Amino acid sequence: MTRDDVTRTITARRIELGLTWQSLADAIDRPVVWTTAALLGQHPIPRPEAEVLLEKLGLSSDLAPILGAVPVRGTDRDVVSQDPTIYRLYEALAVYGPALKELIHEQFGDGIMSAINFSVDIAKKPHPSGDRVVITLDGKFLAYDWVSAD
Amino acid sequence: MTRDDVTRTITARRIELGLTWQSLADAIDRPVVWTTAALLGQHPIPRPEAEVLLEKLGLSSDLAPILGAVPVRGTDRDVVSQDPTIYRLYEALAVYGPALKELIHEQFGDGIMSAINFSVDIAKKPHPSGDRVVITLDGKFLAYDWVSAD
Amino acid sequence: MTRDDVTRTITARRIELGLTWQSLADAIDRPVVWTTAALLGQHPIPRPEAEVLLEKLGLSSDLAPILGAVPVRGTDRDVVSQDPTIYRLYEALAVYGPALKELIHEQFGDGIMSAINFSVDIAKKPHPSGDRVVITLDGKFLAYDWVSAD
Amino acid sequence: MTRDDVTRTITARRIELGLTWQSLADAIDRPVVWTTAALLGQHPIPRPEAEVLLEKLGLSSDLAPILGAVPVRGTDRDVVSQDPTIYRLYEALAVYGPALKELIHEQFGDGIMSAINFSVDIAKKPHPSGDRVVITLDGKFLAYDWVSAD
Amino acid sequence: MTRDDVTRTITARRIELGLTWQSLADAIDRPVVWTTAALLGQHPIPRPEAEVLLEKLGLSSDLAPILGAVPVRGTDRDVVSQDPTIYRLYEALAVYGPALKELIHEQFGDGIMSAINFSVDIAKKPHPSGDRVVITLDGKFLAYDWVSAD
Amino acid sequence: MTRDDVTRTITARRIELGLTWQSLADAIDRPVVWTTAALLGQHPIPRPEAEVLLEKLGLSSDLAPILGAVPVRGTDRDVVSQDPTIYRLYEALAVYGPALKELIHEQFGDGIMSAINFSVDIAKKPHPSGDRVVITLDGKFLAYDWVSAD
Amino acid sequence: MTRDDVTRTITARRIELGLTWQSLADAIDRPVVWTTAALLGQHPIPRPEAEVLLEKLGLSSDLAPILGAVPVRGTDRDVVSQDPTIYRLYEALAVYGPALKELIHEQFGDGIMSAINFSVDIAKKPHPSGDRVVITLDGKFLAYDWVSAD
Amino acid sequence: MTRDDVTRTITARRIELGLTWQSLADAIDRPVVWTTAALLGQHPIPRPEAEVLLEKLGLSSDLAPILGAVPVRGTDRDVVSQDPTIYRLYEALAVYGPALKELIHEQFGDGIMSAINFSVDIAKKPHPSGDRVVITLDGKFLAYDWVSAD
Amino acid sequence: MTRDDVTRTITARRIELGLTWQSLADAIDRPVVWTTAALLGQHPIPRPEAEVLLEKLGLSSDLAPILGAVPVRGTDRDVVSQDPTIYRLYEALAVYGPALKELIHEQFGDGIMSAINFSVDIAKKPHPSGDRVVITLDGKFLAYDWVSAD
Amino acid sequence: MTRDDVTRTITARRIELGLTWQSLADAIDRPVVWTTAALLGQHPIPRPEAEVLLEKLGLSSDLAPILGAVPVRGTDRDVVSQDPTIYRLYEALAVYGPALKELIHEQFGDGIMSAINFSVDIAKKPHPSGDRVVITLDGKFLAYDWVSAD
Repeated sequence: MTRDDVTRTITARRIELGLTWQSLADAIDRPVVWTTAALLGQHPIPRPEAEVLLEKLGLSSDLAPILGAVPVRGTDRDVVSQDPTIYRLYEALAVYGPALKELIHEQFGDGIMSAINFSVDIAKKPHPSGDRVVITLDGKFLAYDWVSAD
Repeated sequence: MTRDDVTRTITARRIELGLTWQSLADAIDRPVVWTTAALLGQHPIPRPEAEVLLEKLGLSSDLAPILGAVPVRGTDRDVVSQDPTIYRLYEALAVYGPALKELIHEQFGDGIMSAINFSVDIAKKPHPSGDRVVITLDGKFLAYDWVSAD
Repeated sequence: MTRDDVTRTITARRIELGLTWQSLADAIDRPVVWTTAALLGQHPIPRPEAEVLLEKLGLSSDLAPILGAVPVRGTDRDVVSQDPTIYRLYEALAVYGPALKELIHEQFGDGIMSAINFSVDIAKKPHPSGDRVVITLDGKFLAYDWVSAD
Repeated sequence: MTRDDVTRTITARRIELGLTWQSLADAIDRPVVWTTAALLGQHPIPRPEAEVLLEKLGLSSDLAPILGAVPVRGTDRDVVSQDPTIYRLYEALAVYGPALKELIHEQFGDGIMSAINFSVDIAKKPHPSGDRVVITLDGKFLAYDWVSAD
Repeated sequence: MTRDDVTRTITARRIELGLTWQSLADAIDRPVVWTTAALLGQHPIPRPEAEVLLEKLGLSSDLAPILGAVPVRGTDRDVVSQDPTIYRLYEALAVYGPALKELIHEQFGDGIMSAINFSVDIAKKPHPSGDRVVITLDGKFLAYDWVSAD
Repeated sequence: MTRDDVTRTITARRIELGLTWQSLADAIDRPVVWTTAALLGQHPIPRPEAEVLLEKLGLSSDLAPILGAVPVRGTDRDVVSQDPTIYRLYEALAVYGPALKELIHEQFGDGIMSAINFSVDIAKKPHPSGDRVVITLDGKFLAYDWVSAD
Repeated sequence: MTRDDVTRTITARRIELGLTWQSLADAIDRPVVWTTAALLGQHPIPRPEAEVLLEKLGLSSDLAPILGAVPVRGTDRDVVSQDPTIYRLYEALAVYGPALKELIHEQFGDGIMSAINFSVDIAKKPHPSGDRVVITLDGKFLAYDWVSAD
Repeated sequence: MTRDDVTRTITARRIELGLTWQSLADAIDRPVVWTTAALLGQHPIPRPEAEVLLEKLGLSSDLAPILGAVPVRGTDRDVVSQDPTIYRLYEALAVYGPALKELIHEQFGDGIMSAINFSVDIAKKPHPSGDRVVITLDGKFLAYDWVSAD
Repeated sequence: MTRDDVTRTITARRIELGLTWQSLADAIDRPVVWTTAALLGQHPIPRPEAEVLLEKLGLSSDLAPILGAVPVRGTDRDVVSQDPTIYRLYEALAVYGPALKELIHEQFGDGIMSAINFSVDIAKKPHPSGDRVVITLDGKFLAYDWVSAD
Repeated sequence: MTRDDVTRTITARRIELGLTWQSLADAIDRPVVWTTAALLGQHPIPRPEAEVLLEKLGLSSDLAPILGAVPVRGTDRDVVSQDPTIYRLYEALAVYGPALKELIHEQFGDGIMSAINFSVDIAKKPHPSGDRVVITLDGKFLAYDWVSAD
């Protein structure tokens, strides 16, 4: 079984059992975005957490080593450009990405926002004109730095 | 002159004069991400603001109507996948996009985060392990809704 | 079973039983474009409607939870550019899309026609030179609006 | 001068003079979507109409023959997938295209909606929850028909 | 079973039984290009013809409804650009397509050759320097015509 | 000046002078499809014919050597897939290409229709249901043949 | 079973039995490049040769008709651009292709080297600085020739 | 001036002066394929040869340093797949590439034919059925060899 | 079984048994990068080493011939551009590749770094600001050299 | 003037003046790979260094602000896959990238080699079988770490 096979099994089983992503995150006391991404195949899941999750999903703990290995990450570009919910995030990047680049450089200097030393949060916030989805990308600034081991 | 020509002129002139994006935003009392994106060709700029900006950049107010027209928005996919600072935003989307989709559906129901009734903010936040870039995407939730005019 | 598997099963069974899309839509009292799109995997189907549809198709109600989950939407770009019936819709967009953009801006201001608060209808209308396919896209106008949660 | 050069000139001049597309359509008594598409390079414009339009735009009537030639039609796929206003039309096609194909076949038989014997209209319709953009695609049904000249 | 599955079965069975396409076309008294294309999955096949063909191929008549449904048409672009026999047809289009467009416009006016009200024929013609493949594309001219249902 | 520059000049001048492709072909007594394709940059034009054509177009005979060199042939794939008049030819290939391949093999054996020892003709043929565009592709059959120089 | 399935079976069986391509070519007294290409799915294999090859590979002669049918030829572009041994051939084409085009035109006139009336040979030649791979492409020159059947 | 500019100038001037590639190669006593490829921008040309060639082409010797720099090599994939003369070389690779890979491995072991320690030759050879283009690719075999500097 | 099937089996079994790549490399006394690449399907593995590795992985020695055949090498471009760990290597190439090309030419002359007579090493080196990944690419310089077999 | 314009000017001027990259790096006392990459448009160049370099190249110091702005980084994918010297670096990545990913995870844990806190070096090392190009990629290990600003 590959990690992709396990991801498909988890996805189907969660729907069948009617479990929320939040309840799975609560069961291992981890942030819900991290837990959801990990169960969708984007992060290795440490042994103890993997066993709790597999038990809640009614799956064999034999799958734990597969969940524990570092996966090949990423999402097919076609999915990014086809599903409307995901596409809006891409659209925001296409419209505001170059502006964010300019402002990272203006406020921090030459470098990047890390996507590794990084977290994402999603929150539902009320507003008079309707509830808002607020997504926070929070990454360490890494300055371009020409360093060698020796 | 096309909007692209004007964008290139603005970009060059800003560097030549050493103006910050923040100072341009302050001059028209608008959010800095909006102002930067607009000057990079992503939003129409209302007449009065356009004239203030053109004056600060030492450019003719004859360009104001071009800045006032709704532009063709978006960023070339090659730029998105080549510049490391912009790419990290794409990478965050590739790793966490499907998880965010799941959680938007779990917390709000079937629908999307609008990228139109929408704002973006960037902030520099201190942290013991180094300054952090915090980008907030804030869009109205829009539920899939089968509505007709009549 | 994934949603794609269920869609393939539904597609095959409908042909086998000789059921029309209209009869399936009538059975759940929903618009026929919505029903067809949903059965082709583009919308979640609420429990009661899902059970009615599955029964008409002679399929197990165990599939209802899969039909009820929000799917990954969209159509492969190759299908869009290969099937002549679908391609004509794309061609109309390629020839008239930029004109529609200009006129949305002229008549409504800067913004978009929502594809979420949206409906589509198809009708057969007689004409002396031959029947006509009339497709109506009907979406709420959403103005570009820089709003924040706080 | 190529047709593309003329289109760019027209686009710039219209903004400069502050003319609406509607006023240009009215000047030649043609539908506004047709007129806008034609001025954006998608249709040949007959001599008399071309001369009226060029005069309103303050351009030389020497350009009339170029406007009168049948152009190479279409829109770059990157524009279709980058500008949010145009993209929503593509998204509607990606989500509902296969359903529309099924229903064209169910209601009319095997064939297509012509994109040649075809018109498009756009209207602003009020609705309690906000104005709606209503786009009507109206094409002759063409049945697959195996016909030979002899 | 999907239409693609049926197409693969027919393809294999025809080779196994050593049947020519011509003999299959003769059995249903239809043109050979139409019959071959239809058996390769490009056209729906009416019930009586489908049953004759399935019997000749030694396949169950239960497959007739699948052959009778309108298929998703088209050929993968990679096949078009990889198989030398098909590629020569594409090459002819790449070299002479723009010239044919100009001449359709010069001889008929602004419009297209229909690919729906259309037939194709292939013939073997002798020539002193070697046999020739003669392919005739024969489609109704459709003029661009701005017509509405009402 | 490159061949592309010359092609653009010829294209513009022909429209300006209102010359038909047929009249240009008649002037050099060559087939009209060949002449049009050659003037659009797809074939070298021998010196005498080139000089006649340049004179008719009011262009300098200094361009004759450029017209006489073998060009880089072909048409951009985006043009093929965007202009509706050219696209219909591609669509015919996508729908019937594999069938034509099968029938070339059945009628001639393993090989191809040459696109080099080849001609194309276009004709306008009347039909009770409307004029038809009849395009004839006529190429020598070339059998796969494993031949070596020695 | 499709031809692709048979090719995969042959590929696996040859490795399992430790047979060289040369020994397979010798068994049917055909050139080794032709035999290898044919077994990899690029040419139909006549009945007698197919039966000899299938017997050497310990496979059923029932597969002979599949080997005898004209295949869909070609290699996936990704394989061409990923495997280093094949890529070097592509690189030679990318660096020297335009020069070879110029010299074919200079030495032979306007036309092509046929890839159908064609053979390829590979030889190992010694050289003081190391053995050399010598690949000979040998195709009939085909002049562009505008010929019609009638 | 970039190397591309110089290549375009050389290409135009050669046609204007009616010089053959062979005469240019003879002038510097180098192989004709090498000379043609170099003048088309694929190789640096040493100072003395560059000056001879520039003089024959009537161009300033100031361009010699540009010809002497190592260029960015390669040919646009679209040219490779559009021009029929070049495409046949690609087609030969698509049909026989995997077979050549297998035979390189069988005859030489694991490794590649170098495209760097490499030459190409083209010759015109007579044959009863017509002249043949014979292209010889001749590269050193390089075995996969895991070597380190230390 | 194809090499891809064997690679998937090895990948799964290694995780299941908790074996490190280093321990597998040690078992056959080969460099760890070579061993890992070979087990991931990039190199043929000689018989004795293959048998040792298969035994450690608890797999049948019948798979040894498949491991011993030269594979089709390379990695899908989508994996290269999606997994963040691999993407950083691509990013380094995109930012510094042209500079490395210039310096190879300046220091060695016109040619390449071989990727065949080549080795790669990875090391963990301590540094005050954190451990560093040091990857060494070490390839023989190959000068462009126009050599023929005869 | 854009940064791309300046890069082209620098590239041409360096060849014209016959300056080595090493001499330019020495003039500002910076590593040669960094200097070359920066002059090729991949890094901002601080004011004092920019002025020294512009003077050595005989260019106006007015260009210094453009060199000082953070550029849009990266290299066109077509250049990466067409120039043989750069392609070998890509090939090494395609063959060994997945192995390096596995070993980074095995030796360091889940994370990446930074391409920002990073340096590259190139050296010429002698070897009995020929000089070797040794390229060292040296980046800080960054562990996946879920950190938030607050």
